[in-house]
Amino acid sequence: MNAEELFRNIQYKRSFLCVGLDTDYKKIPRLLLDREYPIFEFNRRIIDATVDLAVAYKPNLAFYETMGAAGYMSLEMTVTYLREKYPDIFIIADAKRGDIGNTSRMYANAYFRTMDFDAITLSPYMGYDSIAPFIEFDDKWAILLAITSNEGSADFQQIELKGNRQVYEQVILTSSKWGTVNNIMYVAGATKAVELKRIRQLIPEHFLLVPGVGSQGGSLYDVAEHGMNDRCGLLVNASRSIIYADVTNKFEQAAREQAGILQKQMEVALKERDLV
Amino acid sequence: MNAEELFRNIQYKRSFLCVGLDTDYKKIPRLLLDREYPIFEFNRRIIDATVDLAVAYKPNLAFYETMGAAGYMSLEMTVTYLREKYPDIFIIADAKRGDIGNTSRMYANAYFRTMDFDAITLSPYMGYDSIAPFIEFDDKWAILLAITSNEGSADFQQIELKGNRQVYEQVILTSSKWGTVNNIMYVAGATKAVELKRIRQLIPEHFLLVPGVGSQGGSLYDVAEHGMNDRCGLLVNASRSIIYADVTNKFEQAAREQAGILQKQMEVALKERDLV
Repeated sequence: MNAEELFRNIQYKRSFLCVGLDTDYKKIPRLLLDREYPIFEFNRRIIDATVDLAVAYKPNLAFYETMGAAGYMSLEMTVTYLREKYPDIFIIADAKRGDIGNTSRMYANAYFRTMDFDAITLSPYMGYDSIAPFIEFDDKWAILLAITSNEGSADFQQIELKGNRQVYEQVILTSSKWGTVNNIMYVAGATKAVELKRIRQLIPEHFLLVPGVGSQGGSLYDVAEHGMNDRCGLLVNASRSIIYADVTNKFEQAAREQAGILQKQMEVALKERDLV
Repeated sequence: MNAEELFRNIQYKRSFLCVGLDTDYKKIPRLLLDREYPIFEFNRRIIDATVDLAVAYKPNLAFYETMGAAGYMSLEMTVTYLREKYPDIFIIADAKRGDIGNTSRMYANAYFRTMDFDAITLSPYMGYDSIAPFIEFDDKWAILLAITSNEGSADFQQIELKGNRQVYEQVILTSSKWGTVNNIMYVAGATKAVELKRIRQLIPEHFLLVPGVGSQGGSLYDVAEHGMNDRCGLLVNASRSIIYADVTNKFEQAAREQAGILQKQMEVALKERDLV
């Protein structure tokens, strides 16, 4: 999927919502625990309940790895389910990988071939050859960490370089030359309004994946205000506030309601800018 | 395992060798492919053939993830085998993880509890709360990327901050305060002699995990010269040059020979400094 196709999906659904599948065995409704694959079953139901309100899903790999091989199996089943039933959905592996070239090639193979994700989040710390194997795939995306939503983002991302740039700005300036607006996105935390604005000066056209709305306290209004461009240019992720909205047998309905609240706000933001 | 115990193992084996289990289905001897778990079978035989010459093993997770759930199963079997048969071996998950706090906690759980690794490699880009969940575990280690062995290390790790430090130096200065010499190590590439020397000025006492000897061209002599401290302070990793030394039915013997060559050089380096 390229940027234009992604934008068309956003227009069609009047939504730039990404639902984060941070699926935690301890937090899913008890009624699913007697299923053979409770994690997959939960994901499947959350997806079915929200898919007309979202353009992307983002399994957070830590939550699957923590369950070992069985968790990995649930991840594979989730990706296959999405790919087969909802082929227009953009599927992101939230993995924060990045290693020397021959190892990054293995990761690319894992998430773009063994599993058919559209995109993967990557840490830029190891530089060009750690990212290149991902952008060499046709129609696949590398989503590089720029400025993250957590407190620790100040520790290294925001330290000042010679010449008054911060590290995250240099990451964007250098790495945006490695690919195009059709295969590189950046992670920019919803809690970082000032930096979002700055990022839009540096890269007006790239898509941004924005976590931190909802449980982490970021505002969708601010994100749209500072981050939107003329083909939206945003995927805003919410995880816990949607998928754990309720833990009774009404969890699907509750998740749908929470996703719907965000979709409505997104529709307003898109309309205000004449994008739908 | 704490730093003192690790040093005692190094003295006992006269080796600070870490064998990297970058196990690639396409590169292992064909004769293993009819086994139910060829990857595990290969690892088991490499381990048995080299274990008296090495103090640590380091599965590179990309190589397991690329095979999906089946690969993950082989990884679990490898860790269990090592832990049960060779309890003194230090087992490193080469994962380069790092995410917001609640996600890093899941990764820590995955590699320190679901699987019983001693240590995990981490990318420092997301700062303190991305690392903290790992060092909160007793007797477990966070191994932070400082300066890596690849070309891309120059892109961000070596850019100059205000005040003339490079990014990797600031990473070390800041993060070394988050834990102790008993729960934090750093990755420092064997191809980076100048930086190894500088790292020893910044942190004389921490253990360093040094990849890049062998296939990547780093010299063990230089690494010992610039990186050793008074309790060795080094784990030097070799992967491909050992595990793929041969692909016939003599692969175990060939791996043992390659590991032996490094162990002999390590013994000399330890003796020269009166550490054995």
